[in-house]
Amino acid sequence: MEIGIGLFGLGTVGSGVVKILQDNAEQITKRTGAHLVVKQAVVRNLAKQRTGFRQNFPITDDPNDILANPAIQIVVEVMGSIDQAYTIIKQALTAKKHVVTANKDLIASRGQELVAIAEANGVDLFFEAAVAGGIPILRTLSTSFTADEISRVAGIINGTSNFILTQMATNHLSYHAALKLAQEKGFAESDPTNDVDGFDAAYKLIILANFAFGIQPVMSDLTIQGITGLTDADIADANSFGYALKLLGVAQRVGETKDAISIEVSPQLVPFTHPLATVNNENNAVLVNGESVGEVMLYGPGAGEMPTANSVLSDLTNVATDLALNTPGRPFNSFNQNIDLAKPSQRIARRFIVIEVDDTPGAMYSVTGMFAAAKISFTDLKQTPAANGIARLVALTHPASDAQINLIRTTIRNADGINLAAEYKLFS
Amino acid sequence: MEIGIGLFGLGTVGSGVVKILQDNAEQITKRTGAHLVVKQAVVRNLAKQRTGFRQNFPITDDPNDILANPAIQIVVEVMGSIDQAYTIIKQALTAKKHVVTANKDLIASRGQELVAIAEANGVDLFFEAAVAGGIPILRTLSTSFTADEISRVAGIINGTSNFILTQMATNHLSYHAALKLAQEKGFAESDPTNDVDGFDAAYKLIILANFAFGIQPVMSDLTIQGITGLTDADIADANSFGYALKLLGVAQRVGETKDAISIEVSPQLVPFTHPLATVNNENNAVLVNGESVGEVMLYGPGAGEMPTANSVLSDLTNVATDLALNTPGRPFNSFNQNIDLAKPSQRIARRFIVIEVDDTPGAMYSVTGMFAAAKISFTDLKQTPAANGIARLVALTHPASDAQINLIRTTIRNADGINLAAEYKLFS
Repeated sequence: MEIGIGLFGLGTVGSGVVKILQDNAEQITKRTGAHLVVKQAVVRNLAKQRTGFRQNFPITDDPNDILANPAIQIVVEVMGSIDQAYTIIKQALTAKKHVVTANKDLIASRGQELVAIAEANGVDLFFEAAVAGGIPILRTLSTSFTADEISRVAGIINGTSNFILTQMATNHLSYHAALKLAQEKGFAESDPTNDVDGFDAAYKLIILANFAFGIQPVMSDLTIQGITGLTDADIADANSFGYALKLLGVAQRVGETKDAISIEVSPQLVPFTHPLATVNNENNAVLVNGESVGEVMLYGPGAGEMPTANSVLSDLTNVATDLALNTPGRPFNSFNQNIDLAKPSQRIARRFIVIEVDDTPGAMYSVTGMFAAAKISFTDLKQTPAANGIARLVALTHPASDAQINLIRTTIRNADGINLAAEYKLFS
Repeated sequence: MEIGIGLFGLGTVGSGVVKILQDNAEQITKRTGAHLVVKQAVVRNLAKQRTGFRQNFPITDDPNDILANPAIQIVVEVMGSIDQAYTIIKQALTAKKHVVTANKDLIASRGQELVAIAEANGVDLFFEAAVAGGIPILRTLSTSFTADEISRVAGIINGTSNFILTQMATNHLSYHAALKLAQEKGFAESDPTNDVDGFDAAYKLIILANFAFGIQPVMSDLTIQGITGLTDADIADANSFGYALKLLGVAQRVGETKDAISIEVSPQLVPFTHPLATVNNENNAVLVNGESVGEVMLYGPGAGEMPTANSVLSDLTNVATDLALNTPGRPFNSFNQNIDLAKPSQRIARRFIVIEVDDTPGAMYSVTGMFAAAKISFTDLKQTPAANGIARLVALTHPASDAQINLIRTTIRNADGINLAAEYKLFS
């Protein structure tokens, strides 16, 4: 059986898809029973030179060359952008073509609608490559943890920010030097906002939360904090307490009866002994905690041409299997339920807190009084000598809720001579 | 739709399966569309007290109560043993019942035959729980790396030996003290041979190699070395060079054109910076290297009642899906090909070598002469002061083949006053 593929986009991932399809054609046919053949690619810029694969298919700039081509059963969308990709995917699904996409922004924001269109048309819509590059986390969540109650899905799901934090921690680079290195190595865009402010991780976390809990969060449901405010001193202090500082995406059940979900992207302190602390540079990892299975972690490359292309290929071979068995149209994730979002009072964790305070008599007494009033108590405390008349106080606290932290933030904001320089959760 | 389940075995894993089916019944039905109901359990010892679940099904000791029960569509075999399990699984498959088993010994030794029987009868035979407990590695290999060429699958796949090695390395216990602790904690049997001599890992590696490379190795194809010969001094020396000592199962393509497979269970030195080095105590991890995807690692609990039961459940829900779609009978692993086993000359790695030599003039000259003759050269060398007139020489070598190592072993065996005390590969 031959299965025709139409490619929207021939950038790094698109080229990788073509290369794997060509290089491993024999193995793919042996394992799926199908010949997967690229019939057409549609690109924005026809003039661009393309290398790394044999070009034995036409390349045009007219979407209809794919959408109206009856020889094409599967559309691969790897061109990025939300609006144009949405239109094309919707048209493809409506034309009863299966769709494989790596577009996390689109799936996170309009996935629910597209999934419904795919179901209505009896075709597959897969997007393994949208989360954590080469790590097969979505298919694993939907096929291997179906019977378990997942209590938490958490991960290092943005390679750019993890690279920057790793370089700051291990090579003692400043944030700006580490960002510059990431840009030189091609891990960061010239405008890194999407990565370093946590939005990219937030899109991926929305998709992970959907697969783990069956919920449909939107961006405004998430607490999102990036890494731009992190300093070398914060990292050094976290290290001295035995923790790595990592940008994590965490979606978890909280509350006494575990009936609410907290979803958050933020820098957190991870104990050096935890597997997540060993995930360095551009690598990603996703941790799944299940009531039955315990703690499982999937680790691997979070981006890159070939790892991401491999996830697209895994989707393509799954469509091929569905075609052979005559079973397409099943949702990638069949899990839907309503769970409330957590209230600030339910989001409880130990904290790493940095306070800068004028080095005057009674200042420390005043600080400790504020925390006592908010019922936040310390487990570890470290004061370093004052520089420029400002003392730096670093503390680890007993568990405290976001509501308590909001209270202390307000108190400190309204006080003179004291500043809450950093506040991060401890991951456990 | 109700799906009837018959359980052979109600030990820890069997009880865990019943517990999850009962506790998560609603979620399982929501996600699979089916009610999975235990109809019957068959055990060896009817007198044994069983707790941890509601016993709302009959327990007998006659296999026919399951095999001849038309209300049972899926047989779960979690009683261990090879011979009796083989007979029961064969009868179940022939009676057109789907089978889920956690029996690694059986699948590793007679899996090929049982898979053929399942296919001929159009029923499923799944065994995710047979390898690495709660880690969903087999389904991942068969659904997410189908289009990739896997170059290596390697892992820490025996929790008992990993617990012992971790305790030796971190708490400086002797081998015997660590084994005793493992037995007290229930991680090791009273006769630990199967775990510490590498046989358990070998069974799992055979199954992993089948899924990764489509080959059908038998036990005699494997090089198997356990951990009983490892000393505290070996571990300390490996650590001092920057490596952890881990019992690994490694199946990889070797040779200039990567056209042969080397399969081996042995202690190896893993760089501290490698993710496998951070896998401690009873945990397991499987590393997959693919030409496209790069390096992916799955980490989690390698044994235990609930993690293993969760893998059985993931198989059960996949059978339920196959029943709903009317697609049972597909092999769990559809990959079959012939690849030659590697020759000793193709098995090349850097080595960690410990030599004990009489502390006499010219002894070291004699040793270095032997290695020069075998064309094995050192990258690191450390000699510690002689105790009882015996000097301990620890070395790391440049890459050397098993053929070269076999040669030097013979040379040393035939020489007086010199002993090859340890020789382990460096994993990279």
